[in-house]
Amino acid sequence: MNPAPLSGKRIVLTQSDVFMGPALSTVLQAQGATVIGDTRALDATGAAAELVREAGTVDVLIAHLAVPNPGTTVLDGSEDEWRTVFAHMVDPLPRLARAVLPQMIERRSGKILVMGSASALRGMKRASSYSAARGAQLAWAQAVGVEVAPHRIQVNAIAQNLVENPTYFPPEIQALPKFKERIKWEMPLGRLVSAEEDAHFAAYLCSEAADCFVGQVFPVCGGWVPR
Amino acid sequence: MNPAPLSGKRIVLTQSDVFMGPALSTVLQAQGATVIGDTRALDATGAAAELVREAGTVDVLIAHLAVPNPGTTVLDGSEDEWRTVFAHMVDPLPRLARAVLPQMIERRSGKILVMGSASALRGMKRASSYSAARGAQLAWAQAVGVEVAPHRIQVNAIAQNLVENPTYFPPEIQALPKFKERIKWEMPLGRLVSAEEDAHFAAYLCSEAADCFVGQVFPVCGGWVPR
Amino acid sequence: MNPAPLSGKRIVLTQSDVFMGPALSTVLQAQGATVIGDTRALDATGAAAELVREAGTVDVLIAHLAVPNPGTTVLDGSEDEWRTVFAHMVDPLPRLARAVLPQMIERRSGKILVMGSASALRGMKRASSYSAARGAQLAWAQAVGVEVAPHRIQVNAIAQNLVENPTYFPPEIQALPKFKERIKWEMPLGRLVSAEEDAHFAAYLCSEAADCFVGQVFPVCGGWVPR
Amino acid sequence: MNPAPLSGKRIVLTQSDVFMGPALSTVLQAQGATVIGDTRALDATGAAAELVREAGTVDVLIAHLAVPNPGTTVLDGSEDEWRTVFAHMVDPLPRLARAVLPQMIERRSGKILVMGSASALRGMKRASSYSAARGAQLAWAQAVGVEVAPHRIQVNAIAQNLVENPTYFPPEIQALPKFKERIKWEMPLGRLVSAEEDAHFAAYLCSEAADCFVGQVFPVCGGWVPR
Repeated sequence: MNPAPLSGKRIVLTQSDVFMGPALSTVLQAQGATVIGDTRALDATGAAAELVREAGTVDVLIAHLAVPNPGTTVLDGSEDEWRTVFAHMVDPLPRLARAVLPQMIERRSGKILVMGSASALRGMKRASSYSAARGAQLAWAQAVGVEVAPHRIQVNAIAQNLVENPTYFPPEIQALPKFKERIKWEMPLGRLVSAEEDAHFAAYLCSEAADCFVGQVFPVCGGWVPR
Repeated sequence: MNPAPLSGKRIVLTQSDVFMGPALSTVLQAQGATVIGDTRALDATGAAAELVREAGTVDVLIAHLAVPNPGTTVLDGSEDEWRTVFAHMVDPLPRLARAVLPQMIERRSGKILVMGSASALRGMKRASSYSAARGAQLAWAQAVGVEVAPHRIQVNAIAQNLVENPTYFPPEIQALPKFKERIKWEMPLGRLVSAEEDAHFAAYLCSEAADCFVGQVFPVCGGWVPR
Repeated sequence: MNPAPLSGKRIVLTQSDVFMGPALSTVLQAQGATVIGDTRALDATGAAAELVREAGTVDVLIAHLAVPNPGTTVLDGSEDEWRTVFAHMVDPLPRLARAVLPQMIERRSGKILVMGSASALRGMKRASSYSAARGAQLAWAQAVGVEVAPHRIQVNAIAQNLVENPTYFPPEIQALPKFKERIKWEMPLGRLVSAEEDAHFAAYLCSEAADCFVGQVFPVCGGWVPR
Repeated sequence: MNPAPLSGKRIVLTQSDVFMGPALSTVLQAQGATVIGDTRALDATGAAAELVREAGTVDVLIAHLAVPNPGTTVLDGSEDEWRTVFAHMVDPLPRLARAVLPQMIERRSGKILVMGSASALRGMKRASSYSAARGAQLAWAQAVGVEVAPHRIQVNAIAQNLVENPTYFPPEIQALPKFKERIKWEMPLGRLVSAEEDAHFAAYLCSEAADCFVGQVFPVCGGWVPR
């Protein structure tokens, strides 16, 4: 086996400083990738094109678009919340694709991996704007994955939930009795997925071994959804 | 069995003049419902609240939000197309919910049925903006369905595809050899689902017999997806 | 709407005296069906053929094949348990199909509805033999549904769980604190599905309005799985 | 990254001489595993226990249980066919589990990977006995996966279809115009999945990086099903 399966791969990672960004960077680099981490806000119309122009050759684009779940009920949600969630998590997707696909189509090679959420696969309370945006991400990856597969480009998505990360599950949350009860009832794995486990799976999907997957959604959530 | 299972029900149906609107109106009325059909565009921020205010008591809201699939590739899509698709099909959902849920919560009774699309469940070419918006709809229905279930309110979605309707499948399309080949390969049913069949199933989900379904997505697509 | 949508339909219901049998009989008859209830054990090789021969014309066959979940862990399971579960719930399916399909194919009309379980859609502890058998049922319905659709025959399945019935959820079980906690955590509906709700949905799938569904699996489990 | 992620792992592979067996052996060994390939028929009651006894320490058991799809319609199927398919593909599962789980539970470490089929996730013609058995496999993996997760044991399944292998897709089949048309219509990937790609993914699921997956089903079928 190749000790550096991502050797020579230039991987663009958006929002590389938050959420799964640091864990992804570490694991991808350890596997030989050149990670072009980016931290700019992508809600502005031209940001995606600019990012890709600066990045040069992109073998893999990781569309890692996250905002914290606002946590409001549908009744307490606002226009602003809705717009913000979609502006950051959903609207950048086609812009990133339009910026990066031409070079991939020309090389007949490339991958886009959407870091999505299993909240789109199973209903959760106080997460309707967030889940809706996540649902848009997954369906988009399925559709684009089927569309660009003939160019030998692979678009897939991870649908994660209950993955350890400082944004969603800081130690003080993990210490709560209610949190422990939730893990017991909702999480067959019996613990949070570690950030490294999630990142390793993402790295696998970025590698050539995963050329056979197109338009597919992979839950990474410790059994919270079975597929 | 009740010959008029929707007798006494006041059902608001958005975009009642297009797409599945006419078939839904006919079937719901035949089953005893008072259908408050509405034809205003719902992309304006205040339209949903206005609609519900005018409607008075609403037992069931059918969020029937549709635009034709633009049919572009992801490369040919534009900001305008994306914004239009989401403005008409996705953004009205929380506005409608915020307008109609308070009276339902007060009565501890009510239903929202989202007329969604199976294009969010299986990838299709030239449908990425459309599928993304449809994915947002389904995930939203799942999340809100779980959230409002304790109020004895049921939110569910139909995920339809390959249903006979003048917008998507006019006779001239159905006559094309390519269309027939598509039906043969992709449609276990071997024919389009009729608009009446789809509307009957929607009527069932509007009835009290369906009080047991919450946050659920029902494919109506002749076996194009099995669940 | 037809007050007796199953009028004139001859529906064979296996194991009509147990599990969902009584509720199904009542609801189907109330909708006009002639229910040919059968109570023989179907694990014997010739029983299915005999049953259908005696029944005469069969418009709909409800393959209602149930044994209580043995409730053992995989380690405590036995050959006998495994064999019994499959002999009663799985092996009769192709026999029933071979007995009843010829007359349906000749008439170019007919339905088979498998009363299956959502335990095949989401993992449960102490249910591996049971879930495996239920998984066979659902996959069989999908495959046969696609195969016989061209004959205008519809084969579908209900995947139920947490439906009120004296076998699985007698009052003493429902009174347990642990049961209430399970409902709270696992059941978005917040209560068991009633036997009547389940039977009404089955009746719908037996009616001509449901001619558009083939090879499909419908969860009826109060949101325990979203689709 | 570990150049030999399976170094030191003793992996039992059943039916190692057929179907995916050779490709799995090659890839697992290349990643450092000691592969204990076994070729005995497992339909005899005592065979699974004997196999595990002879194998000694088992870190991972790959339940690779396959027979060719009989290819009969449900009408042409026979008792013998049904019994054979289940005896080889389904009945060995609990026997293998009962033989191998005690040592894994004692070590609080171990994995079972079921090499299953996507034919259980989407209906196919002339595959009802085969699909039913495959459905039993997947549902069993989900249930046992949830049950044994607290012992730090991971049970998961691959649901493959349209993977290159000499049994199902010999060159003469691949050369048929009808086969090419099937790939065009049913396979977003546009080609068969290679045996190596499938084996690499299986190897990943056998590695410690995959400790976070329990009771999960992973389609490997080039987009034939999206999840």
